[in-house]
Amino acid sequence: MDPRKAETGKKSDQIQSGHVYHLALDIGGSLAKLVYFTKNDEHVVDSEKKNPPKKALGISNSNRNSPVLNGRLNFKKFETSKINDCLEFIKSMKLHLGGCQQPENPGSQTITIKATGGGAYKYADLFKEKLGVSLDKEDEMDCLVAGANFLLETIHQEAFTYMGDQKQFVCIDKNDLYPYLLVNIGSGVGMIKVEGDGKFERVSGTSIGGGTFWGLGKLLTKCKSFDELLDLSYRGNNRAVDMLVGDIYGGMDYSKIGLSSTTIASSFGRAISENKEREDYKPEDIARSLLRMISNNIGQISYLTALRFGLKRIFFGGFFIRRHPFTMDTLSVAVNFWSKGEAKAMFLQHEGFLGAVGAFMSSDKHGLKELLANQKVERTPSKLSFSMDQIQVPQKDWELNGDESIECSVYGA
Amino acid sequence: MDPRKAETGKKSDQIQSGHVYHLALDIGGSLAKLVYFTKNDEHVVDSEKKNPPKKALGISNSNRNSPVLNGRLNFKKFETSKINDCLEFIKSMKLHLGGCQQPENPGSQTITIKATGGGAYKYADLFKEKLGVSLDKEDEMDCLVAGANFLLETIHQEAFTYMGDQKQFVCIDKNDLYPYLLVNIGSGVGMIKVEGDGKFERVSGTSIGGGTFWGLGKLLTKCKSFDELLDLSYRGNNRAVDMLVGDIYGGMDYSKIGLSSTTIASSFGRAISENKEREDYKPEDIARSLLRMISNNIGQISYLTALRFGLKRIFFGGFFIRRHPFTMDTLSVAVNFWSKGEAKAMFLQHEGFLGAVGAFMSSDKHGLKELLANQKVERTPSKLSFSMDQIQVPQKDWELNGDESIECSVYGA
Repeated sequence: MDPRKAETGKKSDQIQSGHVYHLALDIGGSLAKLVYFTKNDEHVVDSEKKNPPKKALGISNSNRNSPVLNGRLNFKKFETSKINDCLEFIKSMKLHLGGCQQPENPGSQTITIKATGGGAYKYADLFKEKLGVSLDKEDEMDCLVAGANFLLETIHQEAFTYMGDQKQFVCIDKNDLYPYLLVNIGSGVGMIKVEGDGKFERVSGTSIGGGTFWGLGKLLTKCKSFDELLDLSYRGNNRAVDMLVGDIYGGMDYSKIGLSSTTIASSFGRAISENKEREDYKPEDIARSLLRMISNNIGQISYLTALRFGLKRIFFGGFFIRRHPFTMDTLSVAVNFWSKGEAKAMFLQHEGFLGAVGAFMSSDKHGLKELLANQKVERTPSKLSFSMDQIQVPQKDWELNGDESIECSVYGA
Repeated sequence: MDPRKAETGKKSDQIQSGHVYHLALDIGGSLAKLVYFTKNDEHVVDSEKKNPPKKALGISNSNRNSPVLNGRLNFKKFETSKINDCLEFIKSMKLHLGGCQQPENPGSQTITIKATGGGAYKYADLFKEKLGVSLDKEDEMDCLVAGANFLLETIHQEAFTYMGDQKQFVCIDKNDLYPYLLVNIGSGVGMIKVEGDGKFERVSGTSIGGGTFWGLGKLLTKCKSFDELLDLSYRGNNRAVDMLVGDIYGGMDYSKIGLSSTTIASSFGRAISENKEREDYKPEDIARSLLRMISNNIGQISYLTALRFGLKRIFFGGFFIRRHPFTMDTLSVAVNFWSKGEAKAMFLQHEGFLGAVGAFMSSDKHGLKELLANQKVERTPSKLSFSMDQIQVPQKDWELNGDESIECSVYGA
């Protein structure tokens, strides 16, 4: 069955599908992330009247052509365990048709979508069967790094620090960006030394990541989702579960080696000494202790790894963080503690979509060429550039669901 | 009430108490460790006839006097949460009387016992109240390092490597022992750079230690003790609970970065995707996954820390290990993996008693002087030396309860 013919959707689908160009996927162990571009001329025209695009960092508007396309870059995620919801969404939005890339052999009818992450392999057959599309697999590390580099170089106010409830945007000079350590916290954690575009090496990692938080959290509480567990942790107190230095030292500091009485001596260590069952602990306290244990450990290993390779900047990405204040604060405090203030943890506005953005960018060569050909716009043969000038911050500052979109213009470079 | 007068014990107690000299304690967050010396002339004489003491490593018998005392050094542990059992044991054995040290002011009747660990502070009042003794607090790090140095320098076949079911004793040249990294895995984990006697610095640590294993294990299984949980882990399979690289990649390796399909991508990450409750997982699989997660993490941080300070040798101690083959193997594999074969994990026969042995040795200056004065033995004013020539290995090679004793001679140095 040709999936194009099967698309009989509602009117609203048809309206939207006309504007969709370009889709890329990053299917990880826990979450499937989508990035897709929607052209929306009317909207962009309206919005440009009200908010003329600001100068993108490091790119002077005066030096380039007017945009060849205006639209929005959209970010959306699904749980990998509910991959069928993701397929349904793609189908209902006709994303796979709007974003279709004609194969090099025009005789073939195969539609391909750029995809990365382990799921690009694992679910390749499912995408073929349900949507009739081939997943064009891009290497996961390539995509992560390409996505991070792109976001850091292009998007104004992409990077920020977070400590003690203070969020501070970091001005990135793209000539002074490299080298840096990219710590991607998904189900597991990958640590990548990045020295430039396409120049990187996976140098470390840990299996204690987002999957550990949610996996252990699911076994220890009645939470039904990662976000519920994360919300819960916000209200908890880890002292109920963790063994603090003061618990061992009878309330005293171990000051000789700089450990205060409130330092965690042993995560979950308090569950040893007391005659309690799991049910006797508050789930929020367990969630908090888990989050702190995992964030602190990632912060420590990240710092040690950065130190090993002489990297001063550590950028944390991945969907584990979800701009959650306590997670970021713990990571920051860990890096600060272990580096004695010499290293700084930095975060990314689009932390969860690095791989998906990278996969999206990897299709410059193919899909966007077509897109532009249809627009009949002159362009240099080098490459296209995206400029995202205005970030639509969700109304709730700490929006956890991670779906959002950015206004975005495509230029011929 | 004078506790000496209260001691009316049974005949067997009286017989033993006559032989007890010298007691030291290390009271940690989870376990209280005792080291005490028992003089047993008849036994030693018999045993010397049969097994004349072997030359202690690095110490030539020909160059020194005959021993001033022969006996046994005994090792015993209790759960800190059952500290009263420990007090009862000390009382019944009259250890606190045999090991008494007269205070510097002879008018006072206070008996003191050397003690280290946080519990030396926390339980000081309890020891005073129940046994009428003062705990003479020694610094925890000082004791750990003194204990490790003493054991490594003095005891033949104290250190060994363990990988792939192969235990191999390491011959330690005490002139080439330093510097090394001492990783003490108790409830929490301390990492100490040791450069010589009394020359050391705590350089790192992690809160994910033995307390985390037992604390999380207690919440997740019905185990009643640390050892039960450890036994359980021996029969488990972590694949049921952990998300492996192959789970994400549909059974494939991620060979580009050297991750095989059986590498753990996310500890406990498999508990996410499946529609299961805690009760649906086998407790042995959970125990195994916990043990592997924690051991691997400690191995990784230890290696990164050793690398940072240019230390080639890493000795692991602390009661978490308990000579458990799987724990040692995981630590070894982690150090081997992260160092690409350049660093080696080493273990100590008396891993759990480093602090207690250190506290014991710290009383050389006081208690043993008296002991020797009573023996009317000439000695140089420098210090005493212990020689432990023969290790009584428990019948079960992997004895987990940790109580044992070593034949031991005391010499005037």
